[in-house]
Amino acid sequence: MGRTGGSFHEMWRELLPIGRHPASGGYRRYAWTGADAECRAWFKEQAEGRGLTYEVDRNGNQWAWLGDPAAGDAVVTGSHLDSVPDGGAFDGPLGVVSSFAALDELRARQVTFTRPLALVNFGDEEGARFGLACVGSRLTAGQLTVEQAHRLTDGDGVSLPQAVAAAGYDPDRIGADPERLARIGAFVELHVEQGRALDLSGDRVGIASAIWPHGRWRFDFRGEANHAGTTRLVDRRDPMLSYAETVLAARREARLAGAVATFGKITVEPNGVNAIPSLVRGWLDSRAADQASLDLVVNGVEKAAREYAAAHGVDLDVVRESFTPVVEFDHALRDELSRILGKDKEAELKVPVLGTGAGHDAGILSGSIPTAMLFVRNPTGVSHSPAEFAAEDDCVAGVLALADVLEGLACR
Amino acid sequence: MGRTGGSFHEMWRELLPIGRHPASGGYRRYAWTGADAECRAWFKEQAEGRGLTYEVDRNGNQWAWLGDPAAGDAVVTGSHLDSVPDGGAFDGPLGVVSSFAALDELRARQVTFTRPLALVNFGDEEGARFGLACVGSRLTAGQLTVEQAHRLTDGDGVSLPQAVAAAGYDPDRIGADPERLARIGAFVELHVEQGRALDLSGDRVGIASAIWPHGRWRFDFRGEANHAGTTRLVDRRDPMLSYAETVLAARREARLAGAVATFGKITVEPNGVNAIPSLVRGWLDSRAADQASLDLVVNGVEKAAREYAAAHGVDLDVVRESFTPVVEFDHALRDELSRILGKDKEAELKVPVLGTGAGHDAGILSGSIPTAMLFVRNPTGVSHSPAEFAAEDDCVAGVLALADVLEGLACR
Repeated sequence: MGRTGGSFHEMWRELLPIGRHPASGGYRRYAWTGADAECRAWFKEQAEGRGLTYEVDRNGNQWAWLGDPAAGDAVVTGSHLDSVPDGGAFDGPLGVVSSFAALDELRARQVTFTRPLALVNFGDEEGARFGLACVGSRLTAGQLTVEQAHRLTDGDGVSLPQAVAAAGYDPDRIGADPERLARIGAFVELHVEQGRALDLSGDRVGIASAIWPHGRWRFDFRGEANHAGTTRLVDRRDPMLSYAETVLAARREARLAGAVATFGKITVEPNGVNAIPSLVRGWLDSRAADQASLDLVVNGVEKAAREYAAAHGVDLDVVRESFTPVVEFDHALRDELSRILGKDKEAELKVPVLGTGAGHDAGILSGSIPTAMLFVRNPTGVSHSPAEFAAEDDCVAGVLALADVLEGLACR
Repeated sequence: MGRTGGSFHEMWRELLPIGRHPASGGYRRYAWTGADAECRAWFKEQAEGRGLTYEVDRNGNQWAWLGDPAAGDAVVTGSHLDSVPDGGAFDGPLGVVSSFAALDELRARQVTFTRPLALVNFGDEEGARFGLACVGSRLTAGQLTVEQAHRLTDGDGVSLPQAVAAAGYDPDRIGADPERLARIGAFVELHVEQGRALDLSGDRVGIASAIWPHGRWRFDFRGEANHAGTTRLVDRRDPMLSYAETVLAARREARLAGAVATFGKITVEPNGVNAIPSLVRGWLDSRAADQASLDLVVNGVEKAAREYAAAHGVDLDVVRESFTPVVEFDHALRDELSRILGKDKEAELKVPVLGTGAGHDAGILSGSIPTAMLFVRNPTGVSHSPAEFAAEDDCVAGVLALADVLEGLACR
C-alpha cells in the first residue's frame, strides 16, 4: 500500500461509517446535522493531530493552518464533507482526505514551506438541506448576502441561522470575509471526476479547465383537471402529454448540441390516478461547454415545448430559476499545474485538461482568488449515488499529484 | 322556475357552501370529516322535514323511507354527497338533491305508492380519503370485507374505523348487509354525465347501458441515479425518458382503440433538479367499452414501455393495482326506464342509452340487485374539477325524468 496509501487508507476508513444510511448504502451528511458534526469533529482531530492551527471562520468553514495565516499569499487546498441525499463516499471527502494525506507526503519528503499552507472544509457545499449549493464559500466570497442567507429554510422550516446556532456556532457572525480571501494566493480543490473523461482517456488524474455554464428552468404546463375515465381524448387539455414530449425534446436538443439536459424533478396537480392533471411542473437542468451551445439547447427545448403545449390546448410558463455563467479557472495557475504534473512526462503523456458540468466551491472562489481543480478518475462516471466509486490506486495517484502541486506552489 | 325547479333550487343553494375551498372554488367533502358531517346533517333534515323514516345503516349510509322498509321490493334512489379533492358541485349531490325533488314532484302529482320508496346517501363513494372508492356500497354488498376495511388508512394514518368512530358511529357494526339488499327491488342512481355524449346528441337526459371495464396499472421504471451535470448522455440510464415515451404510447394506443388512457399520477426518486432519477413510477388508468379493446390498449402500452425501457437500459415492472370488469346494468330495468321515459316520444326521440367510464355505487350494487342509472347533460363534459357544471334547466329535466321513473316503478 505504501506510505501515502497507508495514510490515505486509514483516514478513509474512519470517515466511511459516518452518516451512511443502512438501507440505501448512501450518505446523508446534511449541513449542521449530527452526521455533519461527526465529520467536522474528524476534521478538527486530523488538524490538531498534525499540529496544525485549527480555526472555524465566521461562516462555519473549517481551516487547518501550517505557517502564519497572516503572512499572506497562502496556498489552500481542500473540499467539503457534506453530501447530497444518498450520495457517494467520494464527492467532497476525497478532496479533504487527500489534502491531509498530501501534507503527510510532503512532510515525509522533508520539504521546506516558503508560503503558508491551509487545508479547508467548506460548509454546506451540496445545498441538500437549504436548497442552495456552496453556501459556505458563497458567503465568504460575498456572493450570498446575510439577508439572503437568513431567508434560507430547510424542509422542516428550520432557518439557516437556527441550524447554525443549533450546531454550536454564532449565526450573527456570518457574512463576507474579504480579509480572509486577501491572504490566499491560490486555492486548489481535488475532486472525484463526475463523468468518464479520464476513464476514456486512460488517465488517473486531470486538471479542470472550466465549469460549464449551467442553469435550471421551470416549465409549468397548465391544462384542465378532468375525469380520466369519462373525458374523451379530443376534449382533453392534458399537460402530461406536452410535458412528455418536452422531456424527449430536451434529450434530442442536448444530443445535437453536445450538451446535457435533464428533467429530474416533477410535481403534478392533483396527482390522482383517475384525474387528468391540471398542472405538470417540470424542471430542466441543462449545461454545455459554452454559452452558445447552452442557449441552443434551452431555446430549442422551450420552442418545442410551446408548440406541444399549443397543440394540446395547454398553457406554458417557462421561468429561469438559476443560472451560472461559464467559470474559466485561472489560466496562469492551470498552466502552472500542467507544468508541475507534466514535468517528468513526454508531451503525449501530459495530464489532460477537461471541463466539467458540476459546480464546486472552487468555482465560487474563482471570482475572488486564483483557483484550480484536480480530478481523480471515476471508472463508471457515477456520482451523487451510493454507487459512486474511485479505485484506491487512483486515489493515491491523486494524493501524490496534489502533493506535487502543493510542493511546486508552496515550497519554491 | 316552476314547482320542481323551486324545490330543486332551494336545496341546491343550501348545499353549495358546504366544504367549498375558498381558494380553489372546488369541494373538499371527504368521508367522515366536518364537511361530510354538514352534508349528512342536511340529508337528515331533508328526510325528517318530509316526514320520512330516517336511519343510518351499519356502514354509515343514510336512508330516508316512505312506506314500510320491511315490506320488501322497495324502489331506492340516491347517490353520494362526498367529493374528490377540489371536485365539482354536481358529482354525487345532483343525484341526492334530485331524489328529494322527485319525491316532492310525485307528492304534488298526488300519486299513490304501491311499493316502499327509499332515498339514500352512500358514504365515502369517491375514496378521496382512504384511497378506495365506493366503500359504503362495497361493504353493504360484501365486496369489501371487514378485515380489508380495517386496514384502510388516510394520509394522516387515521384508520377507517377510527374515522367512523370520530364521526359518531359504531365501527364494530360495519360489514355486509344482505338483509337490507334483499328488501330492495330496484336501485336507480341519477348522476351528472362525466363526458359530452348528451351534449353531442342534444339530449338533456340519458340512460346508462354499462360501466366500461377499467383498471389501474403501476409502471415502475428503474434506472440509475446520477449527476445531471456531469453524466454523458450515452452513459445514462434515465427512467424519465422511457416514462415520457410510454405516456405518449398510452395516448396513441387509446386513440387507436377508441378507449381512454391517462397517466395522471407520478412519483420520482430522488426528484432532484440536478439528479437523473433512479425511479419513475407512473400510474396508467385505462378504460374501454369492452374487455377486448381494454386489453388491446394495456397490452400495447406495456409492450411499448418494455421496448423503451430496454433501449435506455432501464428496468420495468408493471403491476395491475386494481381492475373492475364491465358492469352491464340490468337489461329488464334499463328497458323499463326506456319505455317510461320514451312513452310520449317518437321513436327517433327516444332517450339515449350510453356507456360510461366512471365507477358508481350503482355499479357496485348491480352485482346484488337490479340497478339502473340516469345521466344529466354536462355541456363541457368536465368533472372532478371546480369547473364541473350542468344547466339548471337540465337538472330540472333530470328531476322530472327521475320522478317519471319512480312513478312508473313504484306507483303501478
